[in-house]
Amino acid sequence: MKSVGLITEYNPFHNGHLFHATLSKQRSETNVTIAIMSGNFVMRGEPAIYHKFKRTEMALSAVDLVVELPLIGSLSSSDTFAEIAIKTAQYLDIDIISFGSESASLKDLQYLATQMIDYEKHPDFKEKLKQGKSYPRILSELTHNDTLLQSPNNILGISYLKAMQQFAPHMSALTIKREGSLHHQKVIDHHHFASGTSIRRSLMNDNVDWKNVVPNQIQSLYCKPHTTVEDTFPFIKHQLITQPKESLHSIYTINEGFENRLQTMIHRSDSFESLLSNLNTKRYTQTYIQRVLMNVLLNITKDDVNKEINAVRVLGMSEKGRSYLKYLKANYPNRHYITNVNQKTAHYFKNEIKATHVYNLLSNQSQTDFNTPLVRI
Amino acid sequence: MKSVGLITEYNPFHNGHLFHATLSKQRSETNVTIAIMSGNFVMRGEPAIYHKFKRTEMALSAVDLVVELPLIGSLSSSDTFAEIAIKTAQYLDIDIISFGSESASLKDLQYLATQMIDYEKHPDFKEKLKQGKSYPRILSELTHNDTLLQSPNNILGISYLKAMQQFAPHMSALTIKREGSLHHQKVIDHHHFASGTSIRRSLMNDNVDWKNVVPNQIQSLYCKPHTTVEDTFPFIKHQLITQPKESLHSIYTINEGFENRLQTMIHRSDSFESLLSNLNTKRYTQTYIQRVLMNVLLNITKDDVNKEINAVRVLGMSEKGRSYLKYLKANYPNRHYITNVNQKTAHYFKNEIKATHVYNLLSNQSQTDFNTPLVRI
Repeated sequence: MKSVGLITEYNPFHNGHLFHATLSKQRSETNVTIAIMSGNFVMRGEPAIYHKFKRTEMALSAVDLVVELPLIGSLSSSDTFAEIAIKTAQYLDIDIISFGSESASLKDLQYLATQMIDYEKHPDFKEKLKQGKSYPRILSELTHNDTLLQSPNNILGISYLKAMQQFAPHMSALTIKREGSLHHQKVIDHHHFASGTSIRRSLMNDNVDWKNVVPNQIQSLYCKPHTTVEDTFPFIKHQLITQPKESLHSIYTINEGFENRLQTMIHRSDSFESLLSNLNTKRYTQTYIQRVLMNVLLNITKDDVNKEINAVRVLGMSEKGRSYLKYLKANYPNRHYITNVNQKTAHYFKNEIKATHVYNLLSNQSQTDFNTPLVRI
Repeated sequence: MKSVGLITEYNPFHNGHLFHATLSKQRSETNVTIAIMSGNFVMRGEPAIYHKFKRTEMALSAVDLVVELPLIGSLSSSDTFAEIAIKTAQYLDIDIISFGSESASLKDLQYLATQMIDYEKHPDFKEKLKQGKSYPRILSELTHNDTLLQSPNNILGISYLKAMQQFAPHMSALTIKREGSLHHQKVIDHHHFASGTSIRRSLMNDNVDWKNVVPNQIQSLYCKPHTTVEDTFPFIKHQLITQPKESLHSIYTINEGFENRLQTMIHRSDSFESLLSNLNTKRYTQTYIQRVLMNVLLNITKDDVNKEINAVRVLGMSEKGRSYLKYLKANYPNRHYITNVNQKTAHYFKNEIKATHVYNLLSNQSQTDFNTPLVRI
């Protein structure tokens, strides 16, 4: 069975995702479509607007199998996000990764990926890192401001391609053009497509524009967001007040004394938004800061980080997904494809289970990894 | 200057406290009255209904000097509470401790205190502790159910007397009769006196009964409680979900694997009240459990515990209190009587400062140890 993998967040699922999934199937000429989806927290450094179980249901309108991207992936910068996603794809024996990019030229992106693997070995690169420059800035300096590197989906695509070269050399890639300008748009101004940001805003504000830009047959799944990032603030404040510096220092992604800045700024902040603006410096991107705060919220320490895949959490599947899972289990009897979490399998997913408990605390939801059955359609 | 010390919580201050302070002054024939008062968290294992600054203002209607009982004292069982309170009194050169008791016979209580110091050295005592019996139960067995030990203020008084024998042999004691039956009454049914419980309830429910039982001249200080113990629940739940077992194990007062019970029961609980009832066993008293939960909330670890007094935090004073402080500073130039907390003195009060920050998070108050001047009348 030939399979195509999509690395996704579906926060929430919309027509752009449907379009990408449909084209990916056609162009890859594969039988099975697999989404590797972020769980309850997303790469922007926020809780997802709906929990992963609902987002799985949405996803199954377009794909055959939904597995959870390990939490560490979702709360890392693009290279680690890509590494963990590609290793997950490898574990699932995926043949082709299909990703959206502004460029849509696989050749150009491949060329940059190869170049960047070289750049990163260069002494200049390490020197600039030491000087406190951000990773995207260094790359754009080293590549003489290559315009390809000014588009977020190109950057992520290049990270996938780098990870594939390093960790999954037999996997192939496919890229589908997406409109960069859409990505950060604040309001819905297109008849069929809109950015995640504008859709989340529409759902939050109870305005019905979102109805035009999500697939008809799953509209009943959409409701007011389960939670927003502001709900995290009291808990983050509590952590920053009560944890000693050494504990904060051990939190994943905190480095260079950022814990000091956190403990100073928390006393001047009375909302997530004000904390972000107090923490803002040239040195760090907003998403870096948000991911740090989510790692604080979830108490993810450097010791909790494992970039290897020892098991994959299956969140949902269609009939075709079920056949594919059978095929995987037959071919890789020593791998762990887990469709239900229980006392025996929970140890593989400690971070994800914790994230679900915290998500429920934020959102007053009650579906846990233990009490929620595999989603099937 | 001869001084009398009152070990108090004033949660909130009421006529019973005024009565006790007045009689203490008369009977001790002293010039200065000093309250050693719990800060923002009280021995019942709860946040106080008003922050310590407001409670200091209330207290100064009856006493000359208000100092803060170190947080560790407030969140410990009666022996450690008493030890830290008596050591604080010693640091303040207090001559006489005056406490309320149901018995009112200093001789009887002294006799029991001496007996109990002996009992605690007895192998039987340690054996019973190992069997998992609670401290009050063992004592009542060893003293053949002495009726004196069935009244909470007698027990606390005996703890003071024991601590004085051990740590402040030159300090003397005075006890004033209080009506035991009042202590836990739920409603106000007396014209002038009522229990703290019934007064807190009246304030919470916006019923005006409390007005009859607090001193007239300070009634304007009373308002709806700043917070209740239920406000702590989301934060405690968050801690119990996100902290690994080893971290919980290091929390002060947690022992014998109580961390396991906490992590199991938190998932079955959706309020502080339900958590308490889920945690309830014969082995532990409710106040023990509540104090454990406050130590979790404040992240007070075993390493944060210091039973020695290296400085005393002065919260408020009258003119007479000011003279006494002058006298202390002249006589003990190496001791630290701190009237304002700043970067230089903050290290003495790490636990108390943290408790204030958490109290403010719970209650939406904004008076910190740094921005609140000494209360003076």
